[in-house]
Amino acid sequence: MNEQKSIGIIGGGAWGTALAQAFASQERDTLLWAREPEVVESINARHENELFLKGRKLDPRLKATASLAEISKREILLLVTPAQHLRATLKTIKPDLSPQTILVICAKGIELETGKLLSEACEEITPDNPFAILTGPTFASEIAAGLPCAVTIATLDKAAAKILQQTLGTKLFRPYFTTDIIGTQLGGALKNVIAIASGVVHGKGLGESARAAIMTRGVAELAELAAAMGAQKETLLGLCGIGDLMLTASSMQSRNFSLGAALGEGKTLEEILQQRNAVTEGVHTAESALALAKKYNVVMPITETVNRCLKGELSIDAAILELMARPVRGL
Amino acid sequence: MNEQKSIGIIGGGAWGTALAQAFASQERDTLLWAREPEVVESINARHENELFLKGRKLDPRLKATASLAEISKREILLLVTPAQHLRATLKTIKPDLSPQTILVICAKGIELETGKLLSEACEEITPDNPFAILTGPTFASEIAAGLPCAVTIATLDKAAAKILQQTLGTKLFRPYFTTDIIGTQLGGALKNVIAIASGVVHGKGLGESARAAIMTRGVAELAELAAAMGAQKETLLGLCGIGDLMLTASSMQSRNFSLGAALGEGKTLEEILQQRNAVTEGVHTAESALALAKKYNVVMPITETVNRCLKGELSIDAAILELMARPVRGL
Repeated sequence: MNEQKSIGIIGGGAWGTALAQAFASQERDTLLWAREPEVVESINARHENELFLKGRKLDPRLKATASLAEISKREILLLVTPAQHLRATLKTIKPDLSPQTILVICAKGIELETGKLLSEACEEITPDNPFAILTGPTFASEIAAGLPCAVTIATLDKAAAKILQQTLGTKLFRPYFTTDIIGTQLGGALKNVIAIASGVVHGKGLGESARAAIMTRGVAELAELAAAMGAQKETLLGLCGIGDLMLTASSMQSRNFSLGAALGEGKTLEEILQQRNAVTEGVHTAESALALAKKYNVVMPITETVNRCLKGELSIDAAILELMARPVRGL
Repeated sequence: MNEQKSIGIIGGGAWGTALAQAFASQERDTLLWAREPEVVESINARHENELFLKGRKLDPRLKATASLAEISKREILLLVTPAQHLRATLKTIKPDLSPQTILVICAKGIELETGKLLSEACEEITPDNPFAILTGPTFASEIAAGLPCAVTIATLDKAAAKILQQTLGTKLFRPYFTTDIIGTQLGGALKNVIAIASGVVHGKGLGESARAAIMTRGVAELAELAAAMGAQKETLLGLCGIGDLMLTASSMQSRNFSLGAALGEGKTLEEILQQRNAVTEGVHTAESALALAKKYNVVMPITETVNRCLKGELSIDAAILELMARPVRGL
């Protein structure tokens, strides 16, 4: 039985467009919603997202829409909005959802205002819908170019897992399933903060050896919070944890790593953010993560140093001293 | 009480020289033994290792010797020979050792002929001496340049651990101690094979996303063998495991990654090895690791694919298909 359902992607940034291209190019019935009319026009008229993924030809079968009511009718909805906008998006689309619509959270982050995971927002706003988390080590530009990747999909709903496997899984886009909703989200969110720290070490020219030491300590720190929050430690060892960290914390293609690198080179946060048209999620996550760390009584020295640095409470040189001087946990 | 002892480094390659420089520059009493007379002469006369670390000025306090009898009189001996030569080196120096001499194995690998860990060779040849394993994410060029790093030192001997901490620990060279001899060695050895696989994916231009997926699966595979052999899984999450992998499997500075990359680009193993004057340990480790995997009944798909590739039993294209097609273990 063909269980392939229709796919709607909410969010026309680089990652939303890349996901849409990955599915449309494999003959999945895919529609993309973008907030920006020029993105919708550019995709429909010229098969390109000239604003967020310039130069990448998209499959002509991929259509875009500016209507949230239209996209909300799709059977599977991938939510690729920034983490801090997810709750508002859910509220907006809720009236148009069928109870069968499967919601797939593709943002990585923690709600700054509530301190909640995105799955919690989803459970609060749309409690009747099955939902899943899609996360893992991926660069939008690569996935849009048809390069292979593997991602983690977390869901407690077995029927939804089966449908997502059959609809989203292709020979290039390989989802692996888990039921660890908490661990999956924490890996994707917290690694952005470690990536900023890794970038700072790189930007200061301290070398790859020091960067590997910081990243290793970062894994210990995020695994500790995850375990305290009820996640399985193994989850953090997977694609959505160390896999995503290895990718994010080592490449200038990562917004979080490159932000850290620019800080390390002496730029101010304000200067860096002014030059970006995309969200750098780790900036928000640092503060949210620390609130969780406090609540669950976990010490997160790297996250704390990054946060104080981002808030201007600590100079980069003082931050480096802190990052290098504290003992490594996890040999 | 000052517990700083005299240090002897056996092996004048890039890593041996970098270690010697790290200790000599921090006023530790350091002597380097090199097999090549020109290395000894170059270090003593011009404070440079012109053969293996060209262009890096070394501390004038660092002296080199060609006499194994002389180096064997040192209180701490760092064994920085290639893994496959360790047993022979131990046999040669044994007559000159005092029972108090602390032996520190700095090679990363498994004995090809016996299938044994280097610690086992050490226990067999020099059973009366305390020994330790020194491993972790380090690039020789960086450590020689005075950049900071953190390493794992594994030993069951508490007194030796204290002496090693006081003698080898500096503000730039930061050792962290564990008693997990097996896990520490397996991390350092097996990650070289995963680094080759990561290099192949890179060389074939499959992208960072695919590379992160392979590396993640690699961690699962090496942690599984380590656990089957009695290691603590946490050890593989530390500097000597994922820390070392993140460094080795992502940089052309790594001999194993760059070998994989050259294979991915279409060069033959013979061509690549002909152009190198240093040992690429992962080539030997792949076969030894598989023997261990068989013995302990563990499946290691990446290691197996890399080994068949290195032996010429599998083309790179077929290897890529295998690497990408098999399911990821550990989400």
